Amino acid sequence: MSAPIRIGIAGYGNLGRGVEAAIAKNADMELVGIYTRRNPSDLVPLNAGAPVFSMDDLGGHGDHVDVLILCGGSKSDLPQQGPELAALFNTVDSFDTHARIPEHFAAVDAPALANKKTALISAGWDPGMFSINRVYGEALLPDGETYTFWGRGLSQGHSDAIRRVAGVSGGVQYTIPSEAAIEEVRSGSRPVLTTRQKHTRECFVVLANGASEDAVRAEIVGMEHYFDQYDTTVNFITADELARDHAAMPHGGFVIRSGNTTDEHAQVIEYSLALESNPEFTSSVLVAYARAVHRMSQAGQFGAKTVFDVAPGLLSPKSAAELRAELL
Amino acid sequence: MSAPIRIGIAGYGNLGRGVEAAIAKNADMELVGIYTRRNPSDLVPLNAGAPVFSMDDLGGHGDHVDVLILCGGSKSDLPQQGPELAALFNTVDSFDTHARIPEHFAAVDAPALANKKTALISAGWDPGMFSINRVYGEALLPDGETYTFWGRGLSQGHSDAIRRVAGVSGGVQYTIPSEAAIEEVRSGSRPVLTTRQKHTRECFVVLANGASEDAVRAEIVGMEHYFDQYDTTVNFITADELARDHAAMPHGGFVIRSGNTTDEHAQVIEYSLALESNPEFTSSVLVAYARAVHRMSQAGQFGAKTVFDVAPGLLSPKSAAELRAELL
Repeated sequence: MSAPIRIGIAGYGNLGRGVEAAIAKNADMELVGIYTRRNPSDLVPLNAGAPVFSMDDLGGHGDHVDVLILCGGSKSDLPQQGPELAALFNTVDSFDTHARIPEHFAAVDAPALANKKTALISAGWDPGMFSINRVYGEALLPDGETYTFWGRGLSQGHSDAIRRVAGVSGGVQYTIPSEAAIEEVRSGSRPVLTTRQKHTRECFVVLANGASEDAVRAEIVGMEHYFDQYDTTVNFITADELARDHAAMPHGGFVIRSGNTTDEHAQVIEYSLALESNPEFTSSVLVAYARAVHRMSQAGQFGAKTVFDVAPGLLSPKSAAELRAELL
Repeated sequence: MSAPIRIGIAGYGNLGRGVEAAIAKNADMELVGIYTRRNPSDLVPLNAGAPVFSMDDLGGHGDHVDVLILCGGSKSDLPQQGPELAALFNTVDSFDTHARIPEHFAAVDAPALANKKTALISAGWDPGMFSINRVYGEALLPDGETYTFWGRGLSQGHSDAIRRVAGVSGGVQYTIPSEAAIEEVRSGSRPVLTTRQKHTRECFVVLANGASEDAVRAEIVGMEHYFDQYDTTVNFITADELARDHAAMPHGGFVIRSGNTTDEHAQVIEYSLALESNPEFTSSVLVAYARAVHRMSQAGQFGAKTVFDVAPGLLSPKSAAELRAELL
């Protein structure tokens, strides 16, 4: 067996912790550094032996790390770190602001190419595995429609939105796909579905002292863009119930392609995820793509890449010959 | 738009007909020839204008065809045609004898490399899309188990087997996955399932004159390897019922990866197909991979390839920039 792939983690929140856990599941990888903006001695990794450094040390660690996994947020961390660090390291990130992906790709591509680095952006499950299945679906059934359903799962963005409402002291939001809509899509009938028909939203809210249930409910269900196009249920609970019953971060969903190969024959392709931990699964995807990035870098394939550019076999620790014999 | 990709079809059974239908669904492709061992004037293509040639003309048509799709059978056609034609054309085949894939790969690789051709073997859905999902599943959840279920669908091999039984004048066999077993796998519990627990088999048989139902049933359900490890139901029907109710070729199935990212969190990935026409879907996969083969050939990536070697984006008629903007 060749030397292990040396992985670094830049940023240690839920995602960074998930990456640490995922590296431990991959025998061909080694965690060589967790990089944090906090004081390194304050950080408690899952494995007490994991080496922790300051983010400021990254500049001198280019030769010690084969692939650096960027575990910051898409809003402010990754737009800055992505281009900066792609000049120094092979990188993987989970940039998930769909509308700004072309811009992020270009910003990362230039420094990566100039410094002969491979930088894979927007890995995870959406963007990521769901995107791959949208591409496969369109290519295999060009005469068809693609449907994406999310959930049942906790939406971070919508949970943040309800916590900003006056009179709310805490809360979470679950996105729930409509079983009836999914069944209709699975039938091959290619229905036209409105936003309201595809998903409902369920909120669990802790009221601030003296706040009114009716006022808070009205503000949430009418919130533009986040809730007004959905049927939304608001449940009021105690702070203890919130902590006890809603600390997990489940998620998942469905990408369904329904199409016809001839007028006579409908065909349906379905990909689905049922995740008990959204961040841990995303981290696991990032780690598998780190293996591919290491190989693409060794093969001289530099610049920004996406999951669409990565052949499936590159994700596996098995050789091409092993994959053909065992899994084809 | 660049010149259309010129596709040839070698062999015109169910698969070849499906390829002709699939090419018509892809605006960037053109059917330049159907090649047959029959008398070309006897062949009736779906589109009356399709050019039909003798298989013997292939030798002189190397410059007219960008990718030749081999639509023969895995038992005798492809082992011979694959290596022969990979010396003359970029090719795609659906070789599906799992145990002999490494041998077929080697046999095709040498002539393809020697003649700077790209030859993709074993495309379709199993081997093919199911295989890809087995690789993704293992790579994303290394601590886990992969489960494949087939059906509900008509199995050609098992239908052939029952038609060879003395006293049978016709019949078909359907493979039926166990809903209970699938639900158990979806739960994330990683059950150990026996062959008998995963699938049942259902036969519809037309008896020959004077044959005994009991004798035929006993012979079928006890048939080694094909039926003895399964719970098998045998229904006797008339020749008219067989023709009326069992002429379609539906199939499909499920690849499910169940794994843990940590001891606390199970994660389940599921890929499934519900196909009204097995051969038409397989053909549609072959055609999408023909696009990828054309591009890999243009990029100088010669030799034998499998679906594991093909980045998802290569299957799409859209550019990498379009895919990033629209589908990531």
